[in-house]
Amino acid sequence: MGIADDGQGQRMYELVRELFPFCRSITGDGVRRTLESVGRHIPLEIKEVASGTPVLDWTVPNEWNIRDAWIKNRAGERVVDFRRSNLHVVSYSIPVHRWVPIDELREHLFSLPDRPELIPYRTSYYKESWGFCIPHSLLESLTDAEYEVCVDSTLETGYLTYGEYVVPGDTELEVLISSHVCHPSLCNDNLSGISAAVFLAQWLQSLPARRYTYRFLFIPVTIGSITWLAMNRDRVGRVRHGLVLTCVGDGAPFTYKKSRRGDVEIDRVVQHVLRHSEAAFRVQEFFPYGYDERQFCSPGFNLAVGCLMRSTHGTFPEYHTSADDLSFVRPEHLFESLARLVDVIEVLEGNRVYVNLKPEGEPQLGRRGLYDAIGGDSHAANRQLAMLWMLNMSDGKHTLLEIAEMAKVPFEEMRAIAELLEQHALIARADSLDEPNARLAMVRS
Amino acid sequence: MGIADDGQGQRMYELVRELFPFCRSITGDGVRRTLESVGRHIPLEIKEVASGTPVLDWTVPNEWNIRDAWIKNRAGERVVDFRRSNLHVVSYSIPVHRWVPIDELREHLFSLPDRPELIPYRTSYYKESWGFCIPHSLLESLTDAEYEVCVDSTLETGYLTYGEYVVPGDTELEVLISSHVCHPSLCNDNLSGISAAVFLAQWLQSLPARRYTYRFLFIPVTIGSITWLAMNRDRVGRVRHGLVLTCVGDGAPFTYKKSRRGDVEIDRVVQHVLRHSEAAFRVQEFFPYGYDERQFCSPGFNLAVGCLMRSTHGTFPEYHTSADDLSFVRPEHLFESLARLVDVIEVLEGNRVYVNLKPEGEPQLGRRGLYDAIGGDSHAANRQLAMLWMLNMSDGKHTLLEIAEMAKVPFEEMRAIAELLEQHALIARADSLDEPNARLAMVRS
Amino acid sequence: MGIADDGQGQRMYELVRELFPFCRSITGDGVRRTLESVGRHIPLEIKEVASGTPVLDWTVPNEWNIRDAWIKNRAGERVVDFRRSNLHVVSYSIPVHRWVPIDELREHLFSLPDRPELIPYRTSYYKESWGFCIPHSLLESLTDAEYEVCVDSTLETGYLTYGEYVVPGDTELEVLISSHVCHPSLCNDNLSGISAAVFLAQWLQSLPARRYTYRFLFIPVTIGSITWLAMNRDRVGRVRHGLVLTCVGDGAPFTYKKSRRGDVEIDRVVQHVLRHSEAAFRVQEFFPYGYDERQFCSPGFNLAVGCLMRSTHGTFPEYHTSADDLSFVRPEHLFESLARLVDVIEVLEGNRVYVNLKPEGEPQLGRRGLYDAIGGDSHAANRQLAMLWMLNMSDGKHTLLEIAEMAKVPFEEMRAIAELLEQHALIARADSLDEPNARLAMVRS
Repeated sequence: MGIADDGQGQRMYELVRELFPFCRSITGDGVRRTLESVGRHIPLEIKEVASGTPVLDWTVPNEWNIRDAWIKNRAGERVVDFRRSNLHVVSYSIPVHRWVPIDELREHLFSLPDRPELIPYRTSYYKESWGFCIPHSLLESLTDAEYEVCVDSTLETGYLTYGEYVVPGDTELEVLISSHVCHPSLCNDNLSGISAAVFLAQWLQSLPARRYTYRFLFIPVTIGSITWLAMNRDRVGRVRHGLVLTCVGDGAPFTYKKSRRGDVEIDRVVQHVLRHSEAAFRVQEFFPYGYDERQFCSPGFNLAVGCLMRSTHGTFPEYHTSADDLSFVRPEHLFESLARLVDVIEVLEGNRVYVNLKPEGEPQLGRRGLYDAIGGDSHAANRQLAMLWMLNMSDGKHTLLEIAEMAKVPFEEMRAIAELLEQHALIARADSLDEPNARLAMVRS
Repeated sequence: MGIADDGQGQRMYELVRELFPFCRSITGDGVRRTLESVGRHIPLEIKEVASGTPVLDWTVPNEWNIRDAWIKNRAGERVVDFRRSNLHVVSYSIPVHRWVPIDELREHLFSLPDRPELIPYRTSYYKESWGFCIPHSLLESLTDAEYEVCVDSTLETGYLTYGEYVVPGDTELEVLISSHVCHPSLCNDNLSGISAAVFLAQWLQSLPARRYTYRFLFIPVTIGSITWLAMNRDRVGRVRHGLVLTCVGDGAPFTYKKSRRGDVEIDRVVQHVLRHSEAAFRVQEFFPYGYDERQFCSPGFNLAVGCLMRSTHGTFPEYHTSADDLSFVRPEHLFESLARLVDVIEVLEGNRVYVNLKPEGEPQLGRRGLYDAIGGDSHAANRQLAMLWMLNMSDGKHTLLEIAEMAKVPFEEMRAIAELLEQHALIARADSLDEPNARLAMVRS
Repeated sequence: MGIADDGQGQRMYELVRELFPFCRSITGDGVRRTLESVGRHIPLEIKEVASGTPVLDWTVPNEWNIRDAWIKNRAGERVVDFRRSNLHVVSYSIPVHRWVPIDELREHLFSLPDRPELIPYRTSYYKESWGFCIPHSLLESLTDAEYEVCVDSTLETGYLTYGEYVVPGDTELEVLISSHVCHPSLCNDNLSGISAAVFLAQWLQSLPARRYTYRFLFIPVTIGSITWLAMNRDRVGRVRHGLVLTCVGDGAPFTYKKSRRGDVEIDRVVQHVLRHSEAAFRVQEFFPYGYDERQFCSPGFNLAVGCLMRSTHGTFPEYHTSADDLSFVRPEHLFESLARLVDVIEVLEGNRVYVNLKPEGEPQLGRRGLYDAIGGDSHAANRQLAMLWMLNMSDGKHTLLEIAEMAKVPFEEMRAIAELLEQHALIARADSLDEPNARLAMVRS
């Protein structure tokens, strides 16, 4: 199983490149253009929620749009120019156009003294103000007495926009895949997650059938997940597993941040997949900071949602700066992330509970042609042992994944064994009745 | 919170000095004089239980008092003199006055060959005999053929005496603080615990209110706790937490010995306090030896009572010798012990369970002025993260202490955050109804 | 307690020597002769189950017997001769007698190229064929164009034979001891387990009484345990503890393989015994491969059966070769294995639950003459502390073994203390009513 790269890494990267120039924020046309692009790859449903709509403890904010912004010196030259980088403007900056004395201007300028050539990324969503983010070297070169400042933006009643795509499955139990669409020209922290989600959705579409229903969300961080949760309270109970995807395009080892519940199936599945991949990886316990897992794992929902990353927010030097650009993410890293996500889904889809139909003693494998470990073939011997594990632990209490972990073999190998034993009527699914009941419960709720 | 030393360490030491000369035993006037002194600091209730009273599996023994004791050589010189150290006489020695041949005398002499200048401490409560404890160097110098021996004691029907002081609280649920008053001139193993208890009680008195009722016991080891337990069977169920205090005046790191139950609130609280103090410390699992925790943690009671010590019984060279004197305990160590006890009580008092009143998603902290982590202020960022922990884990299942431990911050910091969030109506006490019920349960029982 | 070697090690070895020449397989006269020998030591009941009898998922196979087998060269010399070693013939080889070209013959020859002087051990129970096992050096010397091959065997309707011996106890709850009798002239992997079981049974017979009923099985691996389980389904529920014995005659440290349940009493008992013996040992988690524990621990039975070994199957160079001979097992190793088994049984027999009859506070040990730790006698002090552990933990929830483990003393020491405390009416058995109920449950089932 799993997938091989038939050019998908490059196509994932092309989508990142296509989305890079748009000036995204938590609302506005940058989000709309992003979702339009995504919608050319998967049949996305676009939702618009009006400013002022109460959502849980929050209110949907006014919509922000920006056309241009600059700082001109006395000579009329644009020393800072939004057209060169949309990071230059603090997101949600209110309109301004006037001459500003240098001392006052400095209070509106943000830079990184320790990385003087990079532009930082700043927002001011909930406090009305304006500002520019610039390289520290540029800041130090501003010696005129005053500068002409212009932010040609609007902050007005409008909408919060997000995208949603549901790939239906055999049950209404859902797997939630969430990525954020609110950062401007930042590749790893934003676009890599979108791209991974898009191509994962495409792969899911291509399957003949799915056990679970898959829901993909493309939302602004925090207010987006809060809005979705507010508007889907009745659906939240269907979410059985979930992942937030972010920073999956760089070359760092994977980091999996566990769900708040800490030991649910998604936590075990991702760790199993990473353990059986060839690369190093890191696991973090849940903590109530980060991306939208903060909302999905708030105590009132407490969903089984973890977060898959490579580099983690706040810990890599390119984070929230102009260095998180098209050179920081690579096709091969994007593809590897997709491949691991496919592995995760394959485990989720196949992780069933079986019962041994011949539980008293071992069944006679030889007369069924299942006993072929003779002759010192160590692969065959391992396969034989895995088969004995499957038979021994198929007592209706252990999932296929748990048995694979006991036998120390990859899930895929144990799944193949389970299928073989099922064909020989030695085991049967214990959960075959689960899902109709689950569906029924959904209908009732 | 916590306390600073405004001279209390010195006052604690003065109390130790005042109590040092009295010849305490498990009964008798030494105990009475000790409790009189204590009673000048806190309003102690003195209990007298008659000899012969059955208490659990035991019987209150006869009362022992001693006026003088000595060993005179042929020249009539006191070579051993009770007036110089009350350790010289084996506690509960019966009266004797006669010439004793040196060989017979030696069977009544106890010394420490490996520490030849120290006087050991010995008792013989339940086996009638007499004896002297002397430096080994002195023992070796006794060359006369016989010596005149006198123990001017009485062992007669009388009373077992102990002191009790209750500081009332909002509930009848109790915290039990116990220290022993049965050792003669020994400072760390006896007087340090008494002094710490006295000053802890004074501090508790000074509080405007207390959640728990605090019961202080000043009792002889073993027979004292057994007597108290026998006479308070109906009260024992109220004890929710407890500590035995002993050896808290020397300069060794703290040792906390867990309750028999091993993971109850007092166990977690003391470990948290010690972990967040700046000093090294040690934790011991429960074992059925030591001080009165043996009785409180007997299987028929199994109270949540631990034991706080610095040096531990039997492991320091001064233990049960004349070297456990006024130079072995120091004001600063006594005060530090008091300060940690105050920390422990503050956690117990404040360790409540909260529920998040906005559990769905994170509440919008910004509009409440609670989101101030912007600007790279790492203290503010940590505080913000602690606030998110508090909100995320306030699901009615975690105590404040547990949340502080998850967030890896001191309890006090999390308590301050809880108060702030409570003021903003974001969380509320989940246990607000607990205590009336608890009180009711008490009334019924 | 425990046993000392009064010549038993030598007698165990003599039994191994007596059984060594017989050509055992999973059926046939080799098994019968083996059981006859065993029957001269203990009153064995011999069971014969007809070929074709369905047993669980299996069928009792035809009975195999062999009189002679050889390979002769052109000169008529026996170059391979069954009379020299019964390992030479693949077990269950069908009859053959003809001239065989060398190339065809090679397909029927098995050898160990990396250990060219040893004869391997091979079977072909369920696939009809014939074969010879020979030293690789011999294989390389076979240069004739053809050889005369003869296997004078029969594979016909007959019986599967096994032996069973029950030593009755006070209850019908059973301890199952199983060893296999299906390997030809192999000492460690076969005969050592038989010998240990025989002498353990003799020791059990010699006891005045037994708490448990002990059932000894002498069976062919796999088909034997499956047959026994099939024919004793109603008895299986009585098995409370069990051990499979194998490879207990060599000089390697002990290995204990846990039951599938992993933390049941037999698992704890064996580990306690090995921990308190003076030798190194190894513990393995359960895995569904090995000897008859595979069947006893299949999910439909899931018995509390572990496996005691020294060297473990497949990991020692002599395994399943002619080097597993009379020089590989030694009287002293056989005896040591027996001694540990006796230790295990003594713990099982004595591992009861007690309740403290004076649970409130410590009972006054002194007036009962039980308090003798005075005087720095460290052995007495340890014994005193063990006594306090026994009193403190006798709350009806802890077994004697668990308390011994808490107190870090050998079970025997804690049992002696329990008996002493029982004599003084300080503790009483909490499980005194257990066994009649258990018996009743048996009668009902």
